[in-house]
Amino acid sequence: MKAEIIAVGTELLMGQIVNTNAQYIARACADIGVGVYYQTVVGDNPERMMETFRIAMSRADVVICTGGLGPTQDDLTKDVLAELVRQKLVLHRPSMEKIEELFRKRNMPMVESNARQALMPEHSDPLQNDTGLAVGVALTFEGTHFILLPGPPKEMKPMFDRYAAPWIQSRLEGVQPLHSVMLKFAGIGESLLEHELIDLIKEQTDPTIAPYAKEGEVAIRLTTRAATAAEAESRLKPLEEEIRRRLGQHVYASEDITIEQQIVRMLKERGQKLAVAESCSGGLLSDMLTAIPGSSAAFAGGIVCYSNELKHKLLGVPMEQLEGPSALGAISEQTARTLAEQLLVRVTADYGISVTGVAGPDESEGKPVGTVYVGLAVRGGQTTVFPLQLSGNRESIKLRSAKSALYQLWKLLKT
Amino acid sequence: MKAEIIAVGTELLMGQIVNTNAQYIARACADIGVGVYYQTVVGDNPERMMETFRIAMSRADVVICTGGLGPTQDDLTKDVLAELVRQKLVLHRPSMEKIEELFRKRNMPMVESNARQALMPEHSDPLQNDTGLAVGVALTFEGTHFILLPGPPKEMKPMFDRYAAPWIQSRLEGVQPLHSVMLKFAGIGESLLEHELIDLIKEQTDPTIAPYAKEGEVAIRLTTRAATAAEAESRLKPLEEEIRRRLGQHVYASEDITIEQQIVRMLKERGQKLAVAESCSGGLLSDMLTAIPGSSAAFAGGIVCYSNELKHKLLGVPMEQLEGPSALGAISEQTARTLAEQLLVRVTADYGISVTGVAGPDESEGKPVGTVYVGLAVRGGQTTVFPLQLSGNRESIKLRSAKSALYQLWKLLKT
Repeated sequence: MKAEIIAVGTELLMGQIVNTNAQYIARACADIGVGVYYQTVVGDNPERMMETFRIAMSRADVVICTGGLGPTQDDLTKDVLAELVRQKLVLHRPSMEKIEELFRKRNMPMVESNARQALMPEHSDPLQNDTGLAVGVALTFEGTHFILLPGPPKEMKPMFDRYAAPWIQSRLEGVQPLHSVMLKFAGIGESLLEHELIDLIKEQTDPTIAPYAKEGEVAIRLTTRAATAAEAESRLKPLEEEIRRRLGQHVYASEDITIEQQIVRMLKERGQKLAVAESCSGGLLSDMLTAIPGSSAAFAGGIVCYSNELKHKLLGVPMEQLEGPSALGAISEQTARTLAEQLLVRVTADYGISVTGVAGPDESEGKPVGTVYVGLAVRGGQTTVFPLQLSGNRESIKLRSAKSALYQLWKLLKT
Repeated sequence: MKAEIIAVGTELLMGQIVNTNAQYIARACADIGVGVYYQTVVGDNPERMMETFRIAMSRADVVICTGGLGPTQDDLTKDVLAELVRQKLVLHRPSMEKIEELFRKRNMPMVESNARQALMPEHSDPLQNDTGLAVGVALTFEGTHFILLPGPPKEMKPMFDRYAAPWIQSRLEGVQPLHSVMLKFAGIGESLLEHELIDLIKEQTDPTIAPYAKEGEVAIRLTTRAATAAEAESRLKPLEEEIRRRLGQHVYASEDITIEQQIVRMLKERGQKLAVAESCSGGLLSDMLTAIPGSSAAFAGGIVCYSNELKHKLLGVPMEQLEGPSALGAISEQTARTLAEQLLVRVTADYGISVTGVAGPDESEGKPVGTVYVGLAVRGGQTTVFPLQLSGNRESIKLRSAKSALYQLWKLLKT
């Protein structure tokens, strides 16, 4: 079954708000085994809405539309659908009573336009609105199922989950739900990942393999249709195992979590803590870790040693190591080492991570942009320094240096 | 001129990511006087992409498409457009050289698929990619202008602003250019701002006034069409002055910069430096400051004192102030004061900012989520503590506490 999601609203079209409804519905459709093939946004204009409905009808089995069910003159979705399916709009009594009741309670006169929210095409099924006034609509016309939902997410989501999804599912025949596994990778780029799996990506049709890349992370999703979870697993598992056989040293999770979430989880399980000394990552690594609820159990804190003074005063790096004609410099393997080790002298933590390098846009200490050293000190163990050469702008280099540092810690923790 | 925005990508269609690109482009189109009439999302499927292009051609003058320019087998946008306009794909030499150079630098063999990122239809204009490898495309076919942009926002945004927008503008005929002024506000919410300006927002038609809110900042844009900058200014200036008369104490810039950019600029002009002690903001404030190129001249560094141990050991807050039955606690006016003042004892800086509070999701020390204290210590001057009660989730509270701290420093610096 093919679905198209339509969002109606000039405020979406003009970019005043982001279309998060489409994301929600697309995910929810995947869960019930309905594939979304198109998403469209159109303004509050009846001719263009009609054209959009007609195009959707020609290419989709289910058309799910959000927005335009409110009381104002701009709210025209029901009028347009009624015209398309050649039905009158009639009052849905229970919805009308709810509206009247509300105005009575508030002791306010009901504006006539509010009654518009209780209208529905004559031969359609109402979708109850548990969190607002506008009633939703479900109907089938010339073989296409239409679902109209309110625009505000707090009304749309419960209406979809409680009423629209079951309505759609009752019309699905013989379609099995989708099952998928997400594998998250660190320490490998998107093109190398794909290169290593190219034969599978090209030849695999069930399960399908789809690679993704975002914000310094790479993932692949394996998807199949099956009647039961056990049947799905029997197909997903061998493929996952083959991928792990090739690239297992990069797979940090088989669910959609960030590497920092994985690390906080692993540290909590061990009752261990991490501290960080950030020069070129400039606080980003701390920010990523503290974005995770409950991370204080695994993250002791850090020092953003942006100046040589702070590296020296707060972390004991000798000034002669940092500055002077024959100094190794702040951007050096030795300074990364000292920073990581001195953290463990000053802070109660099990692991000390340091990041020092050149985020750009200008080179520093004669070292090119993208030169980065990550230090990893282990309490009661050894310190290792990882030299990196990263590409991209300042923002990317900060992000990649932070992610690389986390990758090194993850490699250590998983062993 | 009518535009349609198309986003290509199965990960968008399936709801794995939100289509923020469409929002960005819709707003940017409004800025150059181009109206967006439709937005569409389609998967990485060549037949459906082709159909989507054809429908867009039939109803739009400009088709702006994001996504599918990368190196993988799924990246087909250029192939589909080339087929539509009946042109061959050819190599764009400068882009190819950039790709080869990168692989040489990394000392890695170039995977063949990477060359795909340098392809463009034979008779098209390249759009330079300053932040990535895939070259963009602009061409006109049967009266419709096509723009292909990369999917990752960090590549798409600069390419649109620097190269695609001027290309489109050069094709707008007989339309006077838009001139606008952006006023950026701090320390005031969107609804209060709108309330104070409601008469202007409702009655003004030229210049128009549009409020925006994003990432803890509020802005308004005043826009008019005029043949010359002088003519535009004669209309924009009086309106800006009226707004400043009402809300001038919140206007930190009349251009689109963040408050941290403004603060780094002001500190550099004065030859002064800032240091930060972050508890609940968790490194975000440091990250925001170090995101700015050249910020090391104004930012000495900071301490992410996430645990009481770090507040005590690195910043000298007495343990009896932090813990114990009669302690004031880490989340207190006194601790914010001590943290800010002790920064200036330990670090060579002119201003010390501290942020301590409850980011959630759970309350802490019996204080509710959103309780935050910002301390601001001035070398050779006084220390002030600002108690805040912020709303929102963990991410919002981190962001708002960091932005509030910057607002307090800005108020001090501007006097």
